[in-house]
Amino acid sequence: MRLPKGFVASGARAGLRKKRPDVALLVAEDGASGAAIFTRNRFLAAPVVLAKTSLKTSGGRIKAVVINAGCANAITGAPGMAAARRVQERAAELLACPRDQVFLASTGVIGVVLPDELIRRALPGAVVRLSAGGLDAASRAILTTDVGPKVAQASYTWHGRRGRVVGVAKGAGMIHPNMATMLAFVMTDAPATPAFLKEVLVESARVSFNAISVDGDTSTNDVVLLMASGKLGGAEMTSRAEAVSFAKAVTHVCRELSWMIVRDGEGASRVMEIQVQGARSDRDAALAAHAVATSPLVKTALAGGDPNWGRILAAVGRSGARFAPSKTSLAVGGLTLVKDGVPVPYAEEAAAKQFLKERVQVLIALGEGPGRATLLAADLGHDYVSLNADYRS
Amino acid sequence: MRLPKGFVASGARAGLRKKRPDVALLVAEDGASGAAIFTRNRFLAAPVVLAKTSLKTSGGRIKAVVINAGCANAITGAPGMAAARRVQERAAELLACPRDQVFLASTGVIGVVLPDELIRRALPGAVVRLSAGGLDAASRAILTTDVGPKVAQASYTWHGRRGRVVGVAKGAGMIHPNMATMLAFVMTDAPATPAFLKEVLVESARVSFNAISVDGDTSTNDVVLLMASGKLGGAEMTSRAEAVSFAKAVTHVCRELSWMIVRDGEGASRVMEIQVQGARSDRDAALAAHAVATSPLVKTALAGGDPNWGRILAAVGRSGARFAPSKTSLAVGGLTLVKDGVPVPYAEEAAAKQFLKERVQVLIALGEGPGRATLLAADLGHDYVSLNADYRS
Repeated sequence: MRLPKGFVASGARAGLRKKRPDVALLVAEDGASGAAIFTRNRFLAAPVVLAKTSLKTSGGRIKAVVINAGCANAITGAPGMAAARRVQERAAELLACPRDQVFLASTGVIGVVLPDELIRRALPGAVVRLSAGGLDAASRAILTTDVGPKVAQASYTWHGRRGRVVGVAKGAGMIHPNMATMLAFVMTDAPATPAFLKEVLVESARVSFNAISVDGDTSTNDVVLLMASGKLGGAEMTSRAEAVSFAKAVTHVCRELSWMIVRDGEGASRVMEIQVQGARSDRDAALAAHAVATSPLVKTALAGGDPNWGRILAAVGRSGARFAPSKTSLAVGGLTLVKDGVPVPYAEEAAAKQFLKERVQVLIALGEGPGRATLLAADLGHDYVSLNADYRS
Repeated sequence: MRLPKGFVASGARAGLRKKRPDVALLVAEDGASGAAIFTRNRFLAAPVVLAKTSLKTSGGRIKAVVINAGCANAITGAPGMAAARRVQERAAELLACPRDQVFLASTGVIGVVLPDELIRRALPGAVVRLSAGGLDAASRAILTTDVGPKVAQASYTWHGRRGRVVGVAKGAGMIHPNMATMLAFVMTDAPATPAFLKEVLVESARVSFNAISVDGDTSTNDVVLLMASGKLGGAEMTSRAEAVSFAKAVTHVCRELSWMIVRDGEGASRVMEIQVQGARSDRDAALAAHAVATSPLVKTALAGGDPNWGRILAAVGRSGARFAPSKTSLAVGGLTLVKDGVPVPYAEEAAAKQFLKERVQVLIALGEGPGRATLLAADLGHDYVSLNADYRS
């Protein structure tokens, strides 16, 4: 997939992982505005700490993104932070930009200090190979054990011109443990300030990356970055109201990438779309949806294609959401199974087919208020266990 | 195991489950004081609703407990409630006691109305077979797919006399889905008021039944009941201070039963004892322990005997507990792996052996305050998936 105007990319093999590319480089030729959202895990990996502070000191300017797979550089103390700084320094040197315009991201095993020398040695080669067609190589270099690369695109219009949004992500496909990190980088040619990009990104992430659950384990390294080169030209975007088409395009790309991440979750064979409506508040809806999305009983039933709706409502019941069971209804694939807290006779047989679909649609209506939430969740089958119970070595 | 004085028990086959006993009867010959704690799931099963209200109207008097396996009678609306009432009525008739002195408990599939006629037909035979040696039969009749029956006992002294506490439980061993209910019934010959029993039970449950996690899914039917026949004689117990020996015996029995439940969790091969110390509050400690105990990544690593400590701290990091990573330490089986947020070199190899033990001891020290929590958690291996992903039919 072609990059938006103003961006080039490449992939390289640094040797952190055996026989496969493990370092990706994304470069904004004349720099870009940037905004990012980071993991809320309290154990922030060294690259996350560095990316956060750099984005602040650079005033939201980004020249390059260096991403490595094979080592998360998380819970590594001062040595880990020094290693991350040396990578940032080397990239800034090669690209002739201030150090704080180099954005770092890592994924891989926790508790191991980044072997930064390997990355520093691979960087010159990666710089040489930078090209407008380099997204393909970059998208493969950031994978851990995702089944395949994840890229998505959309277009938008701005004052009569047609611009592009292109995103690349890695998901939670893992064989080696700890590699559950979600990384996503979205690039666009739009002319936009970092503050505006942040606004668009937060809203897009709310309905995409923050609405998926593979196993409920938030990584120490998660990051989503939105960069705008401004190469489309025209006036700078400053509000969502005037840039509706652009905001929609970003949301579309984020949604596509997040769907790919769930669909390619470790060992996933089936995905459940959980909609909660009628909650007292959005927070109550989110609590209920999250309890269903992370319930091992629901997720194993999903893996088995088992029409086991009792587990879904039992999860809602223990979620902490405020509701009255007597007002609760449940529908799967459009068929009502429970109405006002009472099972609907004979509906279950017809609904059983819905549980065998690749995408199972669950609607939980609480009848309490306007609160709502939607979550995509992967199932939990034997492949998940196989991928995650193996020894690291 | 012999029952405490004043109790008789039996098991019967009602036909709710194929070819195995599925109804248990526990009877206090001259009645007993009783106290219970119930599931916090908002979807309360019909027997739970009935047991709660009956215990209240009877003023904490209990004559009999009727327990069935094979049908949870949860999310069954008015028909389910009527069915439960008919079982209660029939038992009261046969045992010549007020209806509200019959305590009901059910476990099994959710969403199916209790076939109460089967149980009512089996009750006369169960009454005839009641005996002081009937605990064995009762303990087997309440199982679903637990590997084996769970009984425990302890003795205590009260004003020079030696009394007994005997408990029976079913855990979360399941082949047919939804049968994750935890039921426990503890009987004693102690002379005690319902209010005092409640006090002892709440404290005992806090460090036993409420400190275990098989899969984080709280059932719609969970109940723990403590009954005292008073047959030991002597003055009535009224405060924990004067009845230390008794309270200890109850805690011992609850702990034994809860350990058996975790050890016999669905497909469990290994158990993790998670201790959190130094949290800002007990609530922060509980948040951290709970996140570790329910993390699919931690539980699958545990199944594989994988010394994957990064997953443990990553779970603590996303738990919502307030702490500073730089003050966090982690030890496994007494070996320190992380000290003040930094990995201890070479400790991991020695610690790897600890992860292969049947009981893995994890100590998380947050260095913030006096808060602490302990949780026992089962692993998540292929057997769990096999047991829970199968079709119900």
